[in-house]
Order: sequence, then C-alpha cells, then structure tokens
Amino acid sequence: MQIAILLYEGFTALDAIGPYQTLNPLPEAELSFVAEQAGPLTDDNGTLTVTPHKTLAEVTRPDIVVVPGGPPENVERQMANPVVLDWLRAADATSTWTTSVCTGALLLAKAGLLKGRRATSHWLSLDTVKEFGVEPTGERVVFDGKYVTAAGVSSGIDMGLTLAGKIAGDQYAQGIQLMIEYDPQPPYDAGSPEKAPAELVEFFRNGGAAQS
Amino acid sequence: MQIAILLYEGFTALDAIGPYQTLNPLPEAELSFVAEQAGPLTDDNGTLTVTPHKTLAEVTRPDIVVVPGGPPENVERQMANPVVLDWLRAADATSTWTTSVCTGALLLAKAGLLKGRRATSHWLSLDTVKEFGVEPTGERVVFDGKYVTAAGVSSGIDMGLTLAGKIAGDQYAQGIQLMIEYDPQPPYDAGSPEKAPAELVEFFRNGGAAQS
Repeated sequence: MQIAILLYEGFTALDAIGPYQTLNPLPEAELSFVAEQAGPLTDDNGTLTVTPHKTLAEVTRPDIVVVPGGPPENVERQMANPVVLDWLRAADATSTWTTSVCTGALLLAKAGLLKGRRATSHWLSLDTVKEFGVEPTGERVVFDGKYVTAAGVSSGIDMGLTLAGKIAGDQYAQGIQLMIEYDPQPPYDAGSPEKAPAELVEFFRNGGAAQS
Repeated sequence: MQIAILLYEGFTALDAIGPYQTLNPLPEAELSFVAEQAGPLTDDNGTLTVTPHKTLAEVTRPDIVVVPGGPPENVERQMANPVVLDWLRAADATSTWTTSVCTGALLLAKAGLLKGRRATSHWLSLDTVKEFGVEPTGERVVFDGKYVTAAGVSSGIDMGLTLAGKIAGDQYAQGIQLMIEYDPQPPYDAGSPEKAPAELVEFFRNGGAAQS
C-alpha cells in the first residue's frame, strides 16, 4: 500500500506529520514524502528543512494521497503550479483515498477533485473552498466517498487514525493511538472558532499575525 | 528567547513537531533544531529526512531545551553519547525550561537532570526512568520546577501549549491553539494504557511490534 504525502516549499509541519505518524504504522505501508523536485525544502517558518525521498514523477499511483496545507500564500503558489495539479489529478484517478489536511483542501479543490463534495479545511479557509464548488463543513474530519478532508493543522492526527481504522480495523488503529499515546488533554478549550474567545477569532479573521 | 529542539538519528517525528508547532509562535522565539553534527538525519522509520540548522556547539545557552524521544534502542545510543549528555548538562545550567517528550525523558534522566524529581515518559518507559532516581507519574504533562516532561509522542502538543501559556499568558496560548485548530476528536478512546483494551496493552508490554 503506497502512501504519498505531498510536500512543497512552505508547508505546515504538523499538517504532514500528523497523518504520517498515524498512517505509517499501517500493515504493508510504503510511505513516501514526495515533492515536485528532489532536494531539501523548508516549512512555513523556514525552520524545518526536510528532504523528500521521491519526486512526483516517481510516485504516480499511490493508494493514499495526503495533501498538507500551509499559509494561504504558500498554498496559492501550488494552486498555480500545473505540475502539482496534474499530479494530483493523475494520482487521484487510481487512488483508494485522496486526503488533505488544513488548507491542503484548497489544492484538491483547485485540481477539481472536490466539486460538489462536502469537505473541510482550516476554519479561516472555509469560505475559500466554497469558491470551488465545494460544500464546506466545520466538522473536524469529513468523509465523502474516497475523499477525506481534515480541518486545521492538528486535525490530521484525527484523520489519520480514523482512516487507519477503516483500512486496518478498529483494534489496529487503537494500537496506533496507544503507541503514540494520543490521549489529548489540551490546557485550554480554544481549539475551534466556536470554542475560542470571540476576540481571538476576530483578531485572526482580521488578519492578525498568523501564530503557527 | 532561544528554543533548541534536539534531534538525533532515529528520533520520533511527532515528538519534535508537537512542541515545535506550539512553541515556535511565541513572541521573540528563535527556534532551532539542533544536532551533534551538521547534515541530514532520519527519523525512527527512516522515512523523514531532516537537516538541523545548527550544531550543539552553536547553541550553548538556549532558554528552552526540548528533547524528543524515539524507540528505546535509538534513545539508548544517545544515552551513551557523552557529547549529547554534556550538552544537555551545560544547556540546562542556564536554561529557563528543560523539557522532554516521550522517551526523551530517559536522556534527561541519564544526564542526571531529573534525579529526585517527578517526571513522565512514554507509558512503556516509566519503569526505566525509575532506575535513574526519578519518580515516574502517569500524568500527561508534568511540571517539577523548571523541568517539564510529557508522556508519549503526541503529548508534546499539550506540553507545548501549556508551556506557551506560562510564558506568554493564557490568551496568547489560546491563539496558538486556535490557529493549529487543536480541538482533538480522536475516533477512539484508547490513548493511554488505562483506557486502551487490555489485550492491546499486554501486546505492546510483551514487545509487540512498535506501531509508531
């Protein structure tokens, strides 16, 4: 089972690592980080330098495609990149699951893969996915056929575990959860726009310095 | 405020990325991934290749030290590495916070920094930390003075957010939580040995194939 996690300059690290850590333990998984070109690239902070092991040309028929997000300007650069869009369409043609985390949904949407489907994205990008004929939802993990989209950044962990359960069964996925000790106990309950203090939500809606 | 996240061959990716994604947004944070030597290294699956930006010799007085874990054999290699142990002791001498995720606590313990303190680690390693005069607890995030230890793998997100709140205030940390949309909704409630099915706990206690 080939799993391809797409990387590109300026992706958000946890968007990629959440699904990685939960899908890689699947039986027979051959997981690769893939990118347009060989060679190192850096995340949205310029702090984490990662070297993908394979280029897009080398992984053409993955069973699972995972598209992490990043800050809008970084994702928009890929939305204007025909090499990436063509790869997404071609990989999707034979994939079993096509998935995204956070603003990665914008890339799937731009490639035309989410048209008429229910999908989610980072809460600040839900209006944008609508422009591509997608029906946005505020849910954390959304399944619509073989398309699985997750909300912002950290939600890729929940998506990966949910997908692991569908693929390998509940007990296997629970084993993954236990080994990564995913028993979340956030110190605050401010992880969604419905739960966070209204002034914080407003601050970020008005373009407040992205803190991630 | 200098933050140093220690990397080494065979670390677990999410152990490092959880604190990274929650601490990097702190005001005035200068976060570096640091390693003994310059050049790329790979995580415990050999799948993620990361190039740290600085060597240990270049970051001698970080305000915050973060030590991610990895599978026992990989951590043990560093527990026998005097360069890493000496760096930890020296960095700790002037740090404001010295922290670990998962089996990273074993490295702090081996360096002699947790003696007589309460600390946590991956649930499978709690007995081992005891051998270093540490009082293990099953809690998810443990503060003892300036020492902050987190349980397995994913707990570094909770630790990072908690520490961010202590450093920059609750509202700031809530802003970080909101932007990474950390509103966890795991599909199962099997993230700790108390909550997971007993046969799974036994399986891993008996050395079942590490699924992470």
